[in-house]
Amino acid sequence: MNYNGIIDKYRDYLPVTKKTPIVTLLEGNTPLIPSQNLSSMLGKGFEVFLKYEGLNPTGSFKDRGMTMAVSKAIEEGTEAVMCASTGNTSASAAAFAARSGIRCIVLIPKGAIALGKLAQALIHGAQVIAIDGNFDDALDLVKQITDQHPITLVNSLNPFRIEGQKTASFEICDMLDDAPDFQCMPVGNAGNITAYWKGYKEYKQKGRSTRLPMMCGFQAAGSAPIVHGRPIKNPETIATAIRIGNPASWQQAVAARDESGGLIDMVTDEEILKAYQILAAKEGVFVEPASAASVAGLIKLHEQGYFTENRKLNTANRNIQIVCILTGHGLKDPDRAIRCVREPITVEAKLETVMEAIGL
Amino acid sequence: MNYNGIIDKYRDYLPVTKKTPIVTLLEGNTPLIPSQNLSSMLGKGFEVFLKYEGLNPTGSFKDRGMTMAVSKAIEEGTEAVMCASTGNTSASAAAFAARSGIRCIVLIPKGAIALGKLAQALIHGAQVIAIDGNFDDALDLVKQITDQHPITLVNSLNPFRIEGQKTASFEICDMLDDAPDFQCMPVGNAGNITAYWKGYKEYKQKGRSTRLPMMCGFQAAGSAPIVHGRPIKNPETIATAIRIGNPASWQQAVAARDESGGLIDMVTDEEILKAYQILAAKEGVFVEPASAASVAGLIKLHEQGYFTENRKLNTANRNIQIVCILTGHGLKDPDRAIRCVREPITVEAKLETVMEAIGL
Repeated sequence: MNYNGIIDKYRDYLPVTKKTPIVTLLEGNTPLIPSQNLSSMLGKGFEVFLKYEGLNPTGSFKDRGMTMAVSKAIEEGTEAVMCASTGNTSASAAAFAARSGIRCIVLIPKGAIALGKLAQALIHGAQVIAIDGNFDDALDLVKQITDQHPITLVNSLNPFRIEGQKTASFEICDMLDDAPDFQCMPVGNAGNITAYWKGYKEYKQKGRSTRLPMMCGFQAAGSAPIVHGRPIKNPETIATAIRIGNPASWQQAVAARDESGGLIDMVTDEEILKAYQILAAKEGVFVEPASAASVAGLIKLHEQGYFTENRKLNTANRNIQIVCILTGHGLKDPDRAIRCVREPITVEAKLETVMEAIGL
Repeated sequence: MNYNGIIDKYRDYLPVTKKTPIVTLLEGNTPLIPSQNLSSMLGKGFEVFLKYEGLNPTGSFKDRGMTMAVSKAIEEGTEAVMCASTGNTSASAAAFAARSGIRCIVLIPKGAIALGKLAQALIHGAQVIAIDGNFDDALDLVKQITDQHPITLVNSLNPFRIEGQKTASFEICDMLDDAPDFQCMPVGNAGNITAYWKGYKEYKQKGRSTRLPMMCGFQAAGSAPIVHGRPIKNPETIATAIRIGNPASWQQAVAARDESGGLIDMVTDEEILKAYQILAAKEGVFVEPASAASVAGLIKLHEQGYFTENRKLNTANRNIQIVCILTGHGLKDPDRAIRCVREPITVEAKLETVMEAIGL
């Protein structure tokens, strides 16, 4: 009955042994929220769910992978974990390192990052070092250092991260009693689509689900290397968490798309911001902009008739289920929210004046 | 097996009927994280747990009460919900109103509040009106308007909020298989200590637990009306969520303290900030400052020998369990984190230089 985190819950599906010391913040177990508005938009016979990964301990899905990466690092006797990251990865790495009592070192390019983005990693006690170079230089240094010293790299190259992240598929199947028909999700570095697809396949293989979803991934239009079929030198998008020009798991993402019969498409920043505001103002769910790419993609595909076409192919007498993955909490990027809203009006402290302002 | 929010889960303990339309964001079901460091600090025979309420959908425990308040408001045919709040209450009210499709109106004193604090309410579509007056003027206007119009007040005066909030006690008992021996928690407006105590009593009465915890509440030293026994005109503390000079549930908090044999004490801002940093850097748990008051209080009581004294009274052959309530996520107050950390150092992008900076 007690929940003890994703490794404890899905131990049989993960590369851990009795000797692995589990470092957990009770990540996972995130809500799968039914969306009435999006279900209605798609019409009769469709059900849309929002997997709210922003309710992981550090506010993003990264915690699922990090509990695995840090637990295995401790098992291997590492002295510290290290990454080049300016966002959710460093926050998660720092939190799990703090929990386990080992050091966390974060390399970043100098000047490029506001302190606010780093506040989480820093408050969790990470040692953040800015280097006189770009992000690739930082990652190269992390690779060299972790190759030569008992320090574990926890960037996405760490294979245990994908193992942990795949547990989100298991949770979805457990909650729906089977896999959904479609999954819409943001694609940045492409580790997460890789992880979900791996999870869905493993669950089906073990007989825990009977079908596989069609995987629909969405990149931001200014940062869509997989869609364009070539790396993007200077990717641009307001969805910073998926602003990646050369995804580490590119081939695996393409495989997930092709094996599942899904697609990888792109959505504009405008579409992302529209979905971001719909989620907050109609669903009551506040996400970081990258997360909204999944719902922007859902809306785009719906307008193209994609789901209705696929509905026709389905002969089963049941609703078609679509899950949108919301990767991070809106509180991760408060500046974006502030830029989207208007200053409150100020009125006299009188009943009539306030009632007039309310317009009731 | 599926989790559908606190009303669905604890329906038998809540004033809802089959006709009540449930408005939920799947709030509740938050982790109870074992704390190795704090357990060790207290010594053999003690177990400390952190109830991480910051993982509710809007980032604070307010969601538990708001699902009840908004569901009942809809049942009663209200047109809008309204509150005077500058923080977690308005964020939660706005999210649940958005979810249900009704309006949310928030009154605030003009000039006093940074837009960042309001970003959540605004992005969820609340109509925020600043009035030319102070917080009491705003609350008075909310009371007048909600008295005269089909608009529901969702400030703490709304009795359904306490009903929802008491479910956190149920979760703790369910996870520990009984009530804990002690509970440490922040006290501001005192609605939450009232709710927890009500929950613990009800669960025991229904035979779901065998004991009741000693309730230990902590106010901030500059904002400690209950400790001093008189309202504080200009309360001051960095823990903004408990900066309240005249708590709405004052008498109920005193009753919880006295009936449980607990206490209501105060902790300084310095102690709060120390606990805030311990939680982030040693436990990997990032909270808003008010939440840290519970752990600051735990440390203070421990240093006074309080738990050891009480340990002696206990003849049972089992560990003493203490739960600290962490009411909100650290991402609610990023500015506080930024003020607590140091700027990263910048070094040359060379292996040796970086290794020297790391000091390994």
